[in-house]
Amino acid sequence: MNKTSDALLTDLYELTMAQAYFARNMTEEAVFEFFVRRLPARRNFFMAAGLEQVLDFLETFHFADGDIDWLTRSGGFTPDALTALRTMRFTGDVHAMPEGTVFFPHEPILRITAPLPQAQLVETRVMNLLNFQTMVASKASRSVLVAGGKPLIDFGLRRAHGAEAGLLAARASYMAGFAGTSNVLAGARFTIPTYGTMAHSFVQAHQDETQAFLHIARARPGNVVLLIDTYDTEAAAKKVVALASRLNTEGIAIHGVRLDSGDLADHARKVRRILDDGGLVGTRILASGNLDEEQVRALVQSGAPIDQFAVGTAMTTSADAPFLDCAYKLQEYAGRPCRKRSEGKATWPGRKQVYRQLSADGKLNGDVITVERDCLEGSPLLVQVMQNGRRLAPSPSLTENRRHAELALAQLPDTLRQIERPAPYDVRIATALTALAQQVDLQT
Amino acid sequence: MNKTSDALLTDLYELTMAQAYFARNMTEEAVFEFFVRRLPARRNFFMAAGLEQVLDFLETFHFADGDIDWLTRSGGFTPDALTALRTMRFTGDVHAMPEGTVFFPHEPILRITAPLPQAQLVETRVMNLLNFQTMVASKASRSVLVAGGKPLIDFGLRRAHGAEAGLLAARASYMAGFAGTSNVLAGARFTIPTYGTMAHSFVQAHQDETQAFLHIARARPGNVVLLIDTYDTEAAAKKVVALASRLNTEGIAIHGVRLDSGDLADHARKVRRILDDGGLVGTRILASGNLDEEQVRALVQSGAPIDQFAVGTAMTTSADAPFLDCAYKLQEYAGRPCRKRSEGKATWPGRKQVYRQLSADGKLNGDVITVERDCLEGSPLLVQVMQNGRRLAPSPSLTENRRHAELALAQLPDTLRQIERPAPYDVRIATALTALAQQVDLQT
Repeated sequence: MNKTSDALLTDLYELTMAQAYFARNMTEEAVFEFFVRRLPARRNFFMAAGLEQVLDFLETFHFADGDIDWLTRSGGFTPDALTALRTMRFTGDVHAMPEGTVFFPHEPILRITAPLPQAQLVETRVMNLLNFQTMVASKASRSVLVAGGKPLIDFGLRRAHGAEAGLLAARASYMAGFAGTSNVLAGARFTIPTYGTMAHSFVQAHQDETQAFLHIARARPGNVVLLIDTYDTEAAAKKVVALASRLNTEGIAIHGVRLDSGDLADHARKVRRILDDGGLVGTRILASGNLDEEQVRALVQSGAPIDQFAVGTAMTTSADAPFLDCAYKLQEYAGRPCRKRSEGKATWPGRKQVYRQLSADGKLNGDVITVERDCLEGSPLLVQVMQNGRRLAPSPSLTENRRHAELALAQLPDTLRQIERPAPYDVRIATALTALAQQVDLQT
Repeated sequence: MNKTSDALLTDLYELTMAQAYFARNMTEEAVFEFFVRRLPARRNFFMAAGLEQVLDFLETFHFADGDIDWLTRSGGFTPDALTALRTMRFTGDVHAMPEGTVFFPHEPILRITAPLPQAQLVETRVMNLLNFQTMVASKASRSVLVAGGKPLIDFGLRRAHGAEAGLLAARASYMAGFAGTSNVLAGARFTIPTYGTMAHSFVQAHQDETQAFLHIARARPGNVVLLIDTYDTEAAAKKVVALASRLNTEGIAIHGVRLDSGDLADHARKVRRILDDGGLVGTRILASGNLDEEQVRALVQSGAPIDQFAVGTAMTTSADAPFLDCAYKLQEYAGRPCRKRSEGKATWPGRKQVYRQLSADGKLNGDVITVERDCLEGSPLLVQVMQNGRRLAPSPSLTENRRHAELALAQLPDTLRQIERPAPYDVRIATALTALAQQVDLQT
């Protein structure tokens, strides 16, 4: 079989529509925007993420010979359309909010301006990439806001929805402020710090828990974190204390212990006392086990002596809201603004910009969505990042994205920082945009 | 950079533990089993899926030069461990329930028997693959059970959690009984029928809705399904009728119309009447738009004249339960059965088998979990599929898996077939297994 690309990772209708556009020479400039329609129940804001992977996808977009072969065999495609697909590259422009930007419903975070068949064909994968990483960064931000500066680690790979979900969740959560991930490939590919401890199976494979601790400590002496809840947590903590001086003579320190079950606050207090009484005041306590941001908040507020949190499945899958009500909608074709008016799904027409006002203390104080050419007070959030299918500048590093996200979270007013209650935020539609919508409605 | 594999798609601790096992020559035979601890609130059973991808992963498991390079640079790994990883292949055995099998909490669906470092190192990816596809097949089955034989189509790619999630959700839902998918790559890779219609953007890109219908029909005359809710659903249905005779003279039939917003049952009735009155009695109605199995059930029960359902995000993300409480646990090492006793997470020890009894009318009538060598009435559900790292026989085709799933769903008693209420199912622990657990507890 010939080489294939990921261009077939799309909905069939994109290809059908492209064929129709080719047949009618409808290849003039189209403008699509990506936005989210509404906040899930337990979100007060979104955090934009995934732009880097979208730009990678667009810069390398093409149909490989194997793809064309398959489309030919599958039937339904004309020779003209197949020829057009074979040579198609993405030659459009992209405007976007930088990754790590906080945003709200109906605010476009990405605009694609390209010949209609191109802008249409990339829809499915663009949505797939932005929906997932934005969802994860938005969820992970909530843990960051309540962790009180304690490190958070992504442990979600095993229950992530496949390989790419595990990889990109590690990236999005690190951007949102997590300290690192257990995911080795994410560490290798995105230069994210990796963290790891040991599993219950390691303890069980040994006849004796102390032997297991000794062996894992010697195997990776630079970072010894012992899992102590396989049988009896406090009994295991005492074994750790007993073992410490022996390991000390070998030059090995016990950096931490991990609690993974039971009442984590209660175990943490008891274990902290056992460790302190045993002289292990520098040994840190890591908590894990189906944690989410609400449990992290409760544990932090309880004053439990937990130093780090591993957050896995709930964050990686955004378990309480595992998708965004997002859309990628045509806003303009051949210079003519347009909108969809389907019941409950109407959209604002035209190329848009979002202006953000800050209050005197530097906190978010209201956004305005308007037409692109409008000029309002505040900072415009969408900037051009790609022209004629090429990035305008090298992408920011993940560290830079992370710094941008940190600043964005620091700008949240207290109402938006709390995770328990819905908090309103003022997003207005500018007069120029409502006027455009009326004008469009009159014409259709 | 040298070539890399997907062996690094793992948690760091797997590699740390492997290094410790190598250092202590703990390479004797280990037995791990994968199971799910409990049913989500709105599930009465699970459907096993993902085995094929697990076997692919195990047969090709290796660390490429690029992986070893990265591990070397990352620090913390000994030359001996790196050498051992470089030559490691999976040489173990696998027993599993065939894909499409219905199963219940605590029943192992996969057992891996292999030298300890191998069985440990594959943990993360094995869980990642089985968790996701089993979750999706279990969710998709619910739509199949209530659709009354009407075709269901996967439209979930755009909000799937990344590329692999979109691909494998198409596979798992097709196995569970969906008729096909919009995902072209899934169609190409797994030979799943692909379906597609048109987007609102296509209508909007035209000045006139009728022109849009005409163009898309001519572009793919073999399968014309017109989206009619962009502006006014019933008005569009009348345009479809008006267009039909014109297309008929070109030899093009209108196979269907799609409703994507508003009160779908109400629109379907009105549209059906318009189509019938216009002579389009053969034109089918497809409904889409954030559907899940509860809405499919309500629409079917309402008697609305909907012929097909597209189910997307809710199914692909298993939105009400986006992960399984699954585990991959060490059950035996070097001939010694073992179990974990962590609070709330205790497991049953040893190699296990599940026997299933059927009632006189061929419905599921109770399962028993026992030790492997026990011999009970009923059919054993776990069968050996891999020996010494190689499949014992070619895998069943996806069509065969789908047929197995269909039979499995047909064996469900009525209580388990309904999707609204929790229904109990009798899963007993055999005396031989409780005896083994007691014996293990006495020895640790």
